[in-house]
This record gives sequence, C-alpha cells and structure tokens, in this order.
Amino acid sequence: MGEKCDEVESREWYLASYAPEGVPTSDHLKLRTIRLSLAADSIPDGHLAVEPLFVSIDPYLRSRMTGLLHGLYSDQYQLDEVITAFGIGKVIRSKDSDFEEGDIMFHPYLPVAEYCVLASHMSKKIDTNNGISLPDFLSSLGVPGFAAWVAIEVLGDPKPGSNVFISAAAGGVGIIAGQLARLRGCRVIGSTGSDDKVKLIKEEFGYDDGFNYHKETDFDAALSRYFPNGIDVYLDNVGGRMLEAVLNHVNKHARIPLCGMISEYNKVWREREGVRNLLNMVGKEVRMEGFMLGSYLHRFGEFTEAMEGYMKQGKLKPKNNIYLGIHTFLDSLASLFTSSNHGKVILQVQPSM
Amino acid sequence: MGEKCDEVESREWYLASYAPEGVPTSDHLKLRTIRLSLAADSIPDGHLAVEPLFVSIDPYLRSRMTGLLHGLYSDQYQLDEVITAFGIGKVIRSKDSDFEEGDIMFHPYLPVAEYCVLASHMSKKIDTNNGISLPDFLSSLGVPGFAAWVAIEVLGDPKPGSNVFISAAAGGVGIIAGQLARLRGCRVIGSTGSDDKVKLIKEEFGYDDGFNYHKETDFDAALSRYFPNGIDVYLDNVGGRMLEAVLNHVNKHARIPLCGMISEYNKVWREREGVRNLLNMVGKEVRMEGFMLGSYLHRFGEFTEAMEGYMKQGKLKPKNNIYLGIHTFLDSLASLFTSSNHGKVILQVQPSM
Repeated sequence: MGEKCDEVESREWYLASYAPEGVPTSDHLKLRTIRLSLAADSIPDGHLAVEPLFVSIDPYLRSRMTGLLHGLYSDQYQLDEVITAFGIGKVIRSKDSDFEEGDIMFHPYLPVAEYCVLASHMSKKIDTNNGISLPDFLSSLGVPGFAAWVAIEVLGDPKPGSNVFISAAAGGVGIIAGQLARLRGCRVIGSTGSDDKVKLIKEEFGYDDGFNYHKETDFDAALSRYFPNGIDVYLDNVGGRMLEAVLNHVNKHARIPLCGMISEYNKVWREREGVRNLLNMVGKEVRMEGFMLGSYLHRFGEFTEAMEGYMKQGKLKPKNNIYLGIHTFLDSLASLFTSSNHGKVILQVQPSM
Repeated sequence: MGEKCDEVESREWYLASYAPEGVPTSDHLKLRTIRLSLAADSIPDGHLAVEPLFVSIDPYLRSRMTGLLHGLYSDQYQLDEVITAFGIGKVIRSKDSDFEEGDIMFHPYLPVAEYCVLASHMSKKIDTNNGISLPDFLSSLGVPGFAAWVAIEVLGDPKPGSNVFISAAAGGVGIIAGQLARLRGCRVIGSTGSDDKVKLIKEEFGYDDGFNYHKETDFDAALSRYFPNGIDVYLDNVGGRMLEAVLNHVNKHARIPLCGMISEYNKVWREREGVRNLLNMVGKEVRMEGFMLGSYLHRFGEFTEAMEGYMKQGKLKPKNNIYLGIHTFLDSLASLFTSSNHGKVILQVQPSM
C-alpha cells in the first residue's frame, strides 16, 4: 500500500458453512476479494486501518467453526463473517491518537485478510526493538507460549526431578512446555506423530526422550517403559486414548492440565473415545483441570517477562512453521490436525516481506 | 464376655477368594469360628483385647477384595485374612497403660469379628460423654462425614447461591454433603435410586430437590431441568454416565470432587462406560479432583469441631442404617450397591446391646 490509495482490493477468508465433523475444507472456508475504502473519512474515530502481517494458527480456531456449542464453548464465527485470529499487523491509517502510521500492533481478533479496519481498543503496540522477531511474538510470547507457561508454571507446577509427560510434544505448545519443564529440572518425555518429530524434540528442544504414537500403538506399554517411576504431571493436548493410558500410570497427587484435545476437535462428542478409568483419579488423588488463557490474563506480564528473560539467555528456543501467503490459510489450519506438523504454525499474509 | 474366660469362641469374616467383578458373595466372603486366647500372658505388650461393637461399612471396602491394583489402589486383603474396617470397640483387656478395661475406642482396621487382639498404637479413645451416639461416630463424625466435609468444604468450596449437585445423595456421604452445602447457602439437588429416597433427601435432609435416576434415565434432560443455571459443584459418588451428563451442564470454573464411583467398583476398568466429553472441561475450565481421606488427616480436628458444633445446634442430622449381628456383614456390604440403601450403613456386631 505504498501510495495510500483510498480504495484497495483485499482478499479475506470467510466461513461459508459450519463443519461439525472432520477437518474443515474449501467447502467451509473460502477466500473472497472485497473492495475496502481506506479514505480518512471512511475510518471511524477510534479505529485503525491495518495491514495484517502474521496470523497465529491455533487448534482452538477449529472449534469456532463447528456450529455447535460444547467442548471449548468458543464463540462461533457467523456465516459469511471474516475469520479472525490472534495476529500482528501494521497500522496504515490511524483515527486514534495512541497509534501512528507504521506502528506494529497485535490484536486478538485480527481478520485473516490483506487489509482491514478495526476498532483500536483491543490493539496493543509491540516494541520491535527488543530483538524478538515478529513471529516469535506469536509463538513463545503468544498463544502457545502462554498456554505452555500456564500449564507448566501455574497448573502443573512440577518439582525438580518430577516426571513430566507432554502429548503433541512437537506442536506449538509442546515445544515450549517441554523446555519450561526442563528449566525446572524435570525429566520430560513427549509423544508425537513421527520419528522425525521424536528426533526434533530430543535434539533441538531438550526432551529427555519421546515416542511416535503411530508406531507405539500400545500406549500403556509405552508409558510403562518410559515412566518406570510413574507420571507426576501430564500436559494433555490430545485427550482420548492417550489420556486414558496416562491414568494407568499416574503417581499420587499427579496433575493433569488440559490444554486442549486435538484428537477430539473433529468429532462430535458422542463419537469420541470415552475415558474409562477415571476412577484411578480417586485412588491416586489426581487433579485434572481445563484452562483457557482468558482467565490468566492478569499474569500475562509475568509470563512475558519470564519468557523474554529465557530467550535473551538462550535458554528457550521457539520453532515457527511459517506458511507464506494468505492463500495458504486453509492448508495451515489443516496442518494442525496432521502428523506432519511441527512447531508453531503461523500464516504470513504476504508471500514475501 | 462377662466372666473373662481365658479362651473365647469368636466368629470372624475372612476373604476366601477375590472378586474382580460383580458384588462379592458368600463365595468370596465367609464366616468362620476361631478360638482366641484372652489370657493376660497371651496378649503382647502394647496390645489390647477388644470386643468390636460397630463397624463402618463403606464402598471402598469392596475395592480391597478385587485382587487388582487400580481404581482406588487400595491395599488388598490377603486370602484367608480377617476383614478389617473402620470401627468402634470396647477394650476388654489392656497391655497398654493408656487404655483401661471398658474404654471405648475406634480403630481404622478393626477386625469384623466378635473378639480380637490388636496393637494399640492406631487405637483412639472416644469420649462417650458428649451426647453423640456410638454409630454417629461412624457416620457424621466418621468416614462418610469426613468425606462429605472434604468434598464440600475443602475441594468444592461453593459460594452462597451456588448450584450443587450430589449423586448417591441418600448414601452415607450424600446425606451429610447435602446438609453441609445447604449450610453454605447453596441450592442443592440430589440424584438417588428410588422415589422413597428422593422423598427422604428432600423432607429430612434439606435437599431443594432430587430425582430418581432409574426413572429419569435421560440424565442430560433431567439436569437441564434441575439446573437451568448450570452446575457449579458436583460431588461425584458414582462416575460413568452421570459424570458424563454433568459435564454437559457445568458452569465456568465448576469443581468436581471425586469421592468414589460406586457404579464402577464391580466392573473391570475396560468394561466401564467411558466419559466422552472431557473436552468440555477445557472450555469450562473445570477442576476435577480425586481424594482419599488419608491426605486430609491434618484437618480431622477442624472437621470434628465443625461437625460436633452443627450437631449440637441441631443443624445436621445423621441417618444410620444399622445391620444387626455379625452374620449380616455380607448383606450390609451388598446393600451399598443396591438402590434400596439409604443412610450410613453400619454393622452392629451383636444383634442386641
């Protein structure tokens, strides 16, 4: 938008139909081109014209497309509504004195679009001079980093030497959570969907060990082998059979933060695999607790400070998996539900920057 | 034992074989008569000869007879070993200077027998002059009372006006828990296994309402009707389908203390009904926590003081269901797993006292 023309063409993703089951496809999510006026007098006071740069692609987005209210109980996107997500954009016109053209900001409901006009009150300016890359603001310092921090530091709270198990270990949350547990002096084992990703979490992200759940399909046997002394904290990202297997290996007073259950998002609930051994939670006095980040926003500052500290000391490595170009949004979302994904999935709106 | 003969005949229950599934029968539990010497020189120092008076019959006893280590992870009775349980007895001979003949004491592992000799160090003398009946020491002030207190006061911690749901509401724990929740100003609904028991919990134990789960078999529909504003605290005593239904009606930050799962004790775990909607725990940020009383013994004094206070003020009523005679032990245990039981099941060792 070099010349600030008053009207632009902007491509944006919108919801064409709900997808109660399965991975959403081009039947459900479609790209359209709209014309958007960026003329000063067409931007209301307290609003900004924004060029979205990066969008955080997280599993919870899928739960906003079911048309059903359960599970994450997410607000549903309306049909024909543009998809919004946590993201980073550049201010190109401002009708709010707190923002200037060129400011970089993030917004929890940034449109997956090339241009947009939005109310400024939920926008937050980013200091781009602290050596942290923009994508890292969406990974270590964004949704998955905060989820990992709440799960390990607040809810799991493992002691040095504790045995920690993390599923979806090579995913956006798992990569950070494993490193945080290691920083606490824990023994950390991860499960993930390919041999390459097992290698990745061990060689790059400090996991003590890991296994490929496609190969080791007897989860009970695998956990017996990897946890001869039982499991103290399990960060559950998948639900279903893995959660059930874990409940056969928990230690007394184990804690299970429930971050999300990616194995369950694409199924209606009556078709999910039930967990049959919750009685073990009584004998082992297990605490299982679901969480949403909105309830921990009062600790976001503490989180940011801790994570920036670790990153500056080289103690924590992010891993971003960047999809290039707004047209790749559907693929980027679908990749969350395949075994091939690793690292934090981010959409870079323009193919090159 | 009027004359203190040196040798007595004593009937006692012992485990003849493990019962992994189903309600234990006379194949598993048998009564035998032994001869026991109560001569002073046959009682070791630090031991007591005791005449058991009342035995607390609780669902967890069943989990000590499976021969399997899961669920409650209870220590298993050994084959041929006499069954022990929380109970009250009278000291008839003492080789411990802290106890005298005639003292009334309770013991966490009292034999289900007419006479016994046991080490004194786990015995605790009871003050029988405070107006509390001996059976009440096993109900309101015993295992079910303490379980109800931990579940409501410590783990559930409902606010005035909170919506509280209690399953097995007419059982030993449910009757006390409902009253404790009412004392906190909550709206309390119970589920139980007969119309008579629904009437009982409403008319005698202050429940606002209740339903018979044999009649209202669509738990989801029942909970929609009884909890138009959702469930804030669910004290789970049954597990299975009821727990699953509750998870469709929980409010944000609901708490679910797991006290035991009576629907599950008689099944091996792979045959239990799985809970398919644990994902709801994420969206609603539910905390589910199993507990065993051993972890809360440091609060037993606080519990006793609170409960005695309520009882003296007439704010809390116990309800005991007393089986008369040692021969009724098997029936008393089986009654826990039928719909007809209500109140705290207690075995009175002698048919009359």
